[in-house]
Amino acid sequence: MTALPPRPSIPPARHGARLAAARELLADRGLQALLVGVGPDLRYLAGYDAIPLERLTMLVVTPDPHRLPMLLVPRLEEDPASRSAAAVAGLVDIRTWEEADDPHAVVAEAVRTVVGRTPTRTAVRIAVTDTLWASHLLRLQEVLPDCRFTVGASVMGEIRIVKDLDEIALLRLAAHAADRVVDAIASGRLVDRAEADVAREVRDRLVDEGHDAAEFAIVGSGPNSASPHHAASDRRIGPREPIVLDIGGPLGGYGSDVTRTLWVTGGESMGGPPAEFVGAYDVLRRAQAAATAAVRPGASPAGIDAVARTIITDGGYGPAFIHRTGHGIGLEAHEEPYLVAGSEAPLRPGMAFSIEPGIYLAGRWGMRLEDIVVCGEDGPDVLNETDRSLRIADGRCGSLTGAEGR
Amino acid sequence: MTALPPRPSIPPARHGARLAAARELLADRGLQALLVGVGPDLRYLAGYDAIPLERLTMLVVTPDPHRLPMLLVPRLEEDPASRSAAAVAGLVDIRTWEEADDPHAVVAEAVRTVVGRTPTRTAVRIAVTDTLWASHLLRLQEVLPDCRFTVGASVMGEIRIVKDLDEIALLRLAAHAADRVVDAIASGRLVDRAEADVAREVRDRLVDEGHDAAEFAIVGSGPNSASPHHAASDRRIGPREPIVLDIGGPLGGYGSDVTRTLWVTGGESMGGPPAEFVGAYDVLRRAQAAATAAVRPGASPAGIDAVARTIITDGGYGPAFIHRTGHGIGLEAHEEPYLVAGSEAPLRPGMAFSIEPGIYLAGRWGMRLEDIVVCGEDGPDVLNETDRSLRIADGRCGSLTGAEGR
Repeated sequence: MTALPPRPSIPPARHGARLAAARELLADRGLQALLVGVGPDLRYLAGYDAIPLERLTMLVVTPDPHRLPMLLVPRLEEDPASRSAAAVAGLVDIRTWEEADDPHAVVAEAVRTVVGRTPTRTAVRIAVTDTLWASHLLRLQEVLPDCRFTVGASVMGEIRIVKDLDEIALLRLAAHAADRVVDAIASGRLVDRAEADVAREVRDRLVDEGHDAAEFAIVGSGPNSASPHHAASDRRIGPREPIVLDIGGPLGGYGSDVTRTLWVTGGESMGGPPAEFVGAYDVLRRAQAAATAAVRPGASPAGIDAVARTIITDGGYGPAFIHRTGHGIGLEAHEEPYLVAGSEAPLRPGMAFSIEPGIYLAGRWGMRLEDIVVCGEDGPDVLNETDRSLRIADGRCGSLTGAEGR
Repeated sequence: MTALPPRPSIPPARHGARLAAARELLADRGLQALLVGVGPDLRYLAGYDAIPLERLTMLVVTPDPHRLPMLLVPRLEEDPASRSAAAVAGLVDIRTWEEADDPHAVVAEAVRTVVGRTPTRTAVRIAVTDTLWASHLLRLQEVLPDCRFTVGASVMGEIRIVKDLDEIALLRLAAHAADRVVDAIASGRLVDRAEADVAREVRDRLVDEGHDAAEFAIVGSGPNSASPHHAASDRRIGPREPIVLDIGGPLGGYGSDVTRTLWVTGGESMGGPPAEFVGAYDVLRRAQAAATAAVRPGASPAGIDAVARTIITDGGYGPAFIHRTGHGIGLEAHEEPYLVAGSEAPLRPGMAFSIEPGIYLAGRWGMRLEDIVVCGEDGPDVLNETDRSLRIADGRCGSLTGAEGR
């Protein structure tokens, strides 16, 4: 195993700045509290990567700068919670609940303490994080019947959408790690292996290259390449067919997500891609390149989508481009900004997102080309570096690392 | 790699029976619809293991037996949705939405169609699945302002809490697979390896033994064993210390979850566990055995918890048993029934849950012993089979499969 590059980390003090930013936005928007459940918002604000189970873990942030946010955790998770960056830096006040307690009532009490100080004539408005489970939200609505609940994206999305230099460094490391996996798969054995076997190799390699976990490994071969979110199946990969390889996962919490389209020849002399496929790939690549080149501060996400869509439509494949052009990426695999019609809020430096047009002919073939791009001060900063051309893969030999090669 | 045992699967027709049961419960409880998001309820009802991302996927079930449930999916996931068991069996009506559509409005329209037929004087009540994201629930509450939303657990928990024979067979296969991993780790090298390295080996082995994924791998060594949900760290395992090993993940969708406590001697002549530890383990083991023996139809989950807690309290460690005795298991790692004070609904044959008392002395040591148990017609059916005694591990040699042995 080769040594992995050193990994930047988020300095604990930064969680203080993030919490302060959240408090300010709450005040600006007339929100009396932000209730943060387990998930990316909790990790962002407190540096706490809690287990996503049914017991309530909740950070209660209020606009009051003199009040430490309360981090309520099940007692049996007190130790990991107290090791979180925000706890170590003294930025949160940890409280625990016992198995027979009602944690939602504890949160309600904390909220009421704050609400007691706000004018009673305005409705009390509380934001909750997007990925909080409905079971928790419904209980909170029960114990706080006089409050109006709203999505936390209005607060957290606003803060998280612009990445700082450490976050971008982690996204770049993740991108390069995923690039290496793409290259290894493209140069390895493919013919006669099941998609699921290749996906397994992808997952192993993502972790070997430094990912915290392998989150997804789309291996769509032959006609399966026409299903954008295909689940790797038992189908055996043949010669003379395409593979859409779309892989990624978090590294230091920040996601990779890269797609390359391979054409497997099987070493046959007539095994190359047909002219139709080559022509469509040329359209796809031009669309992706033009959309990427259009990235700059002030450009609209919808506009970037339109750039790619226009080129694909002009190339004759408009109806075959059945999804948006991209999605933001960070602590979540998909987050703001979305590159889709109607998404008009201008790009700002530090926003990170995928640019991934695709062309899909159901029952026949599909192709997609995806990079992660950061909006820089003057234009795009493309994090992925691996070759964007249609990858012609022999697919017969290479390193035998799949189950069948063991 | 040895051949894995054949795996039972859920026959497609069973999804029809499950959907019918859900419809009947909706009618019984005066609920006009059940809205099922991505997650275990969707998998249970429709056999559809959708990707947990931000785009709305939703199954709309109504009490009307003459109306096919609608399965609304993003267009780019039409192919996997149409391959789901329920779709193949013609049990659901798939509808797709395009990237610029408002999927919540489509769900609202479907609900309104049904609500139009119900008496308008009663409040319209709608259940949503527990793990639905708050962002989706808040949007649904906006587009259906006249409806009252309630947790779907009242419907889905009631159906899912009793496992059928195929589900129990999968739980048993998962338990045996996890047992083999415990045995491999206990007989391998441990001394001077980082907890995280052992956790990585656990994850690899869980998948090698047939798990769909490795969901958790708690490796708490030395004082870390006193933190029940310890996250495997860089700490190097030493001789003369305990390890709490708590591992599991889904196999064919159904979870394993097993805990054994090891004592690592490092091969030292005086490396065995001190008398205090041996004594406490004896208390723990008797508590776990007695709680297991108390499992029978009609027994209360709170009563099972009390059996274990009384023995540990009598042994002098009451305050050190800081969590409930167990949790149900199935398509979720934790689900109903919970073995905790206040949980009085009697056990029924086919319920499956963990029995996992523990003793934790903060800063010193901890221990836990966990099996998955099914309530049989006449008593407990214990799925895990690996040795429950305190495992004395040499920890010096064994198979060198961790990163350092590669």
